[in-house]
Amino acid sequence: MARYDFTTPRLHVDAPLAEGGSVALDAGRTNYLRNVLRLAEGAEVLLFNGSDGEWRARIAKVAKKASELTCVERTREQEKLPDLVYLFAPLKHARLDYMVQKAVEMGAGRLAPVFTQHTQATRINLERMRANVVEAAEQCGVIAVPEVCEPAKLERVIDGWSADEPGRRLIVCDESAPVGSPIETLLALTPGPLGLLIGPEGGFSREEREMLLGHEAVVPVSLGPRILRADTAAVAALAVVQAACGDWR
Amino acid sequence: MARYDFTTPRLHVDAPLAEGGSVALDAGRTNYLRNVLRLAEGAEVLLFNGSDGEWRARIAKVAKKASELTCVERTREQEKLPDLVYLFAPLKHARLDYMVQKAVEMGAGRLAPVFTQHTQATRINLERMRANVVEAAEQCGVIAVPEVCEPAKLERVIDGWSADEPGRRLIVCDESAPVGSPIETLLALTPGPLGLLIGPEGGFSREEREMLLGHEAVVPVSLGPRILRADTAAVAALAVVQAACGDWR
Repeated sequence: MARYDFTTPRLHVDAPLAEGGSVALDAGRTNYLRNVLRLAEGAEVLLFNGSDGEWRARIAKVAKKASELTCVERTREQEKLPDLVYLFAPLKHARLDYMVQKAVEMGAGRLAPVFTQHTQATRINLERMRANVVEAAEQCGVIAVPEVCEPAKLERVIDGWSADEPGRRLIVCDESAPVGSPIETLLALTPGPLGLLIGPEGGFSREEREMLLGHEAVVPVSLGPRILRADTAAVAALAVVQAACGDWR
Repeated sequence: MARYDFTTPRLHVDAPLAEGGSVALDAGRTNYLRNVLRLAEGAEVLLFNGSDGEWRARIAKVAKKASELTCVERTREQEKLPDLVYLFAPLKHARLDYMVQKAVEMGAGRLAPVFTQHTQATRINLERMRANVVEAAEQCGVIAVPEVCEPAKLERVIDGWSADEPGRRLIVCDESAPVGSPIETLLALTPGPLGLLIGPEGGFSREEREMLLGHEAVVPVSLGPRILRADTAAVAALAVVQAACGDWR
């Protein structure tokens, strides 16, 4: 996979992208362009929409509440995101934002918040989470914005797991698993769609652990001898999974 | 390695720890005990000093500016920290604090700030960094406080690398390395002392890269196809190293 240019600002847009095509930005995105990125007419940005690849585009017009860009040339072909669903018990506020950004940066293809018995947060601001995912995708250069699923109870997600997507394995980071490197376990998996579940900071409840460990799709792994905070565990687990059976190979 | 109790507050102390022994806390630590942890006489904490293991201790006296604890029983034997030196180009302020905490949590045995040509920060508050390391060690349950080295220029560190510690390999996360999983490379290393170098966000300069790649101790690895922020790269690289050749095994 080619390295991308990460000095030029990147913007996710909904519009189709094609050579010479024009893309209009609304007031919010125009404000970002003018007042955050401080760009003026003639400056260049990178655009992506998740289906037409990444394009170098030039700012054709900037007014106070609207702007227009012209696609110049395609800089990257469209690729699919890794087929990796990242399931996580939401944390509170800033640490949740952080965890979501890191998951995007580490190449999660879909984000699925799950409520467990010991989950700290009881409600989720999905709009904020989605905006956060878009921003992270723009900044870290991934070529599409990962989907954010509606939050659901862990029990329901696990109940429907194999029926919804037969064959998708679910790697579960379980702090009660005997300490041992996850690498051998992960290298032994047949290539295919994956899920990765990080529990809440209070750990899974006994019932949840039994439900998980009894499920045919579940692959329990340890993340070493130290207790990790949930945001650290997210990056650590995604790194090991991407390195052993994801797109680092 | 045994799991530790992480619901009881932990304190790092300099005093020796032994059964029935008494440990005096100064005004600063007493303030932390009373006003942050909100503990009173009779409450229990865990103490560690990096050489006598971890002890359950009871608060015997708390006054405004001093307090005294009594060691009750040893809860963990002393262990050595992983023989892993984590070398990093300092970031600015809050993100540096965060990176340092994560390195401790991921089991770095020694922290070595290095200045590279593209390093953002030009000075380091070592006292703040050391306090941060102590706090992280207390919270994440490691049994000793990792040493923080004096900052040095990358060039000097690399010049003296093999003379200072013959046989210590230096894993270098190099974003110009061809993308490929680091796991095979890491699994093939002979067990022994390690260093892990994460470059600055601007990347290494051309001269630095040449110096590193030409060094006999250096093992270059890729961290996948996405550009990671330095704090993400720290956790990701430490996870893969601990899993493949560190204490996750």
